[in-house]
Amino acid sequence: MTKYAKRVYVMEEEAKKLDSLTGNLTSNDIISFAAGAPAKEAYPFDALREISQDVFQKSAKGYESVKYGSAVGFPSLREMVCEELLTPRGLHTKAENVMITSGGIQPMNLLCQLLIDPGDVILVETPTFVHTTMIFKMFQAKVVPCVMDDDGMVLEDVEEKIKKYRPKMVYTIPTFQNPTGITMSLERRRRLAELGSKYDVVILEDDPYREIRYSGEHLLPIKAFDTTGHTVFANSFSKIFSPGSRLGYLVASDEMIRRLSDIKLGTDTCTNTIAQAICTEFFKKGYYPDHLKRICDIYRGRRDVMLESIDAYFPERTKHTCPDGGYYVWVELPKSIDATELASRIAKELNICYGIGSAFYSEGAPEGAGRNCMRMNFSGLEQEVIRENVKKLGEFLQEER
Amino acid sequence: MTKYAKRVYVMEEEAKKLDSLTGNLTSNDIISFAAGAPAKEAYPFDALREISQDVFQKSAKGYESVKYGSAVGFPSLREMVCEELLTPRGLHTKAENVMITSGGIQPMNLLCQLLIDPGDVILVETPTFVHTTMIFKMFQAKVVPCVMDDDGMVLEDVEEKIKKYRPKMVYTIPTFQNPTGITMSLERRRRLAELGSKYDVVILEDDPYREIRYSGEHLLPIKAFDTTGHTVFANSFSKIFSPGSRLGYLVASDEMIRRLSDIKLGTDTCTNTIAQAICTEFFKKGYYPDHLKRICDIYRGRRDVMLESIDAYFPERTKHTCPDGGYYVWVELPKSIDATELASRIAKELNICYGIGSAFYSEGAPEGAGRNCMRMNFSGLEQEVIRENVKKLGEFLQEER
Repeated sequence: MTKYAKRVYVMEEEAKKLDSLTGNLTSNDIISFAAGAPAKEAYPFDALREISQDVFQKSAKGYESVKYGSAVGFPSLREMVCEELLTPRGLHTKAENVMITSGGIQPMNLLCQLLIDPGDVILVETPTFVHTTMIFKMFQAKVVPCVMDDDGMVLEDVEEKIKKYRPKMVYTIPTFQNPTGITMSLERRRRLAELGSKYDVVILEDDPYREIRYSGEHLLPIKAFDTTGHTVFANSFSKIFSPGSRLGYLVASDEMIRRLSDIKLGTDTCTNTIAQAICTEFFKKGYYPDHLKRICDIYRGRRDVMLESIDAYFPERTKHTCPDGGYYVWVELPKSIDATELASRIAKELNICYGIGSAFYSEGAPEGAGRNCMRMNFSGLEQEVIRENVKKLGEFLQEER
Repeated sequence: MTKYAKRVYVMEEEAKKLDSLTGNLTSNDIISFAAGAPAKEAYPFDALREISQDVFQKSAKGYESVKYGSAVGFPSLREMVCEELLTPRGLHTKAENVMITSGGIQPMNLLCQLLIDPGDVILVETPTFVHTTMIFKMFQAKVVPCVMDDDGMVLEDVEEKIKKYRPKMVYTIPTFQNPTGITMSLERRRRLAELGSKYDVVILEDDPYREIRYSGEHLLPIKAFDTTGHTVFANSFSKIFSPGSRLGYLVASDEMIRRLSDIKLGTDTCTNTIAQAICTEFFKKGYYPDHLKRICDIYRGRRDVMLESIDAYFPERTKHTCPDGGYYVWVELPKSIDATELASRIAKELNICYGIGSAFYSEGAPEGAGRNCMRMNFSGLEQEVIRENVKKLGEFLQEER
């Protein structure tokens, strides 16, 4: 029978882990704390209807929305990204350095295409997002985990591993990290950009949760401290507009954008123009600020209920993060509780699922790491549903101690 | 400075060739016979406006259109593909074997991810579509050209090269081939499927022009003769709905679909749901048959004018194909005229561009192959514009003899 390429076998195990998280993403049959989906209430349907009437016309705008687009994306959307999303957060860049991508995951795929030959090393946080480690394995990269603390990646460890492994990339989710919710400190952001320049390593800054902050102050992105073009900033419209629109973007040097443009042509030609056209108008018409405020208000309330409920119902000596934004709370149960093993029983008996902690640890992490941990998503469920099901889950876990 | 992955350097030359074709795809400043874009008149704006009002609602359909979708695509769109596009053309398959992709080019990228390690061999037609050879080079494949005649790939040559090179794939555009417009005969379709089974080689059947036939009878796809799962059928909504929607699909075995689903997750998670939702409704509401008839009528007229004008104005001893459908006429000028070299002068002096024949020949083709050839697109320009500019072009070429 057909012999597949090596990457297919190398990625197999990570793909299974990812399936355990996303398997329920499109189902409505189970209470899912595992998914990472926006609230149903967070979709701007009224604006979408209005905009689509305006866009789908025999006009310049109409043709642009249905014909082939350029590999780097709509000029007007690239400008909107600069004006509405980057400049307000302290990242000053030209539209020419912004490339629109097919969703927020594609930047990681494109950067691997640009940089990674089999055997190349990528440094990652521990724990980290299993979807991106799956991509790294797909490119047959060696993934090396680095230590994190409450301020994000520990840079002494990163620098030591840069010297030891000569990696091509350092991958980080600096704001409301997936899965932990931890935010990298400003000082470390500055120093990580400097490490990239000093050692000629690409820092891949994946920042999809940046905008949805419920408390605390916005921090400058790592890319804002980059003086040599070694940091690439990646982001997504999934959390602030629609994940189904499959719109994301990256910010990179002129030379990288030129190379990535060829790679994009060979991957999917261009990002879909229907969603680009609608999203551009969404920003142009000024809908974004109110929309963002509205969804942050929803998520803030859900986060608070999630944290209160864990405190109230989960076993004693449970620890958890208190994120200022994003989608996730990272829960560390007492060591005696194996949340990985319990997951299938809980799904069956309680009809509840959660992100299995061990799925977020890549090879090289300590044996058994994360087995007592859970990634608990609060964005997708209503407050009452969160309270009720965290209670059920907590009571079950109490008995398992 | 940053060292890129090997693929970046290997794909460089093909990427330049592709740029020469697509560089003008999004520009309106030049009369382009080079592009491969639908007619402006071929976009169903009225239907798009109506459908988007219906879709963007707080309803099950509405949420499906904006939230994450499954990696294999909308269940309802996969069913539509079977019912409306495959069964009527003699390809009987289950929806489970259909995967929705981000445009019609992505199937080639996904199949390379599934099958190709560096150095693996892919057999192609001569000439062939430069966009796909660029992808094959991106995967560091060795591309080996096979001979074509008026009935498509010459299978004796294919079989000999299968034995000699042990390729992973044979790539063909069997219907109204790009760039020549040639259609593979029914008998060869059957035999090519058999060769795939006999030698355990994947036959990648790329069939984006199949639906837009202006004369003659529909032929069964190669996939219809496949009894072992070795043929993969790829198609696109670009020519029949909208290229900007970035919707395509492939038909493959259960096992391949399962593997491709993981690969798709690592490439762009899923195909954009906004376009999938709109396209599904377009078919469900029954708009497709009339739409197809309307665009075929437009293109038939343009093809006829293109052929008449070439006959009337191009130099003596010019040969050209007479395609029964698709987008292109392949023109072979007298050997003394170097259409590749003349292209930049013609662009400058006449403000006209065309597909440079030599760009469609991959490595291994005879030295100088295609230099006297042009790929002339007729889909994107109105009849009067075609007549006027083919005349200008012909008169210029007459002087160059």
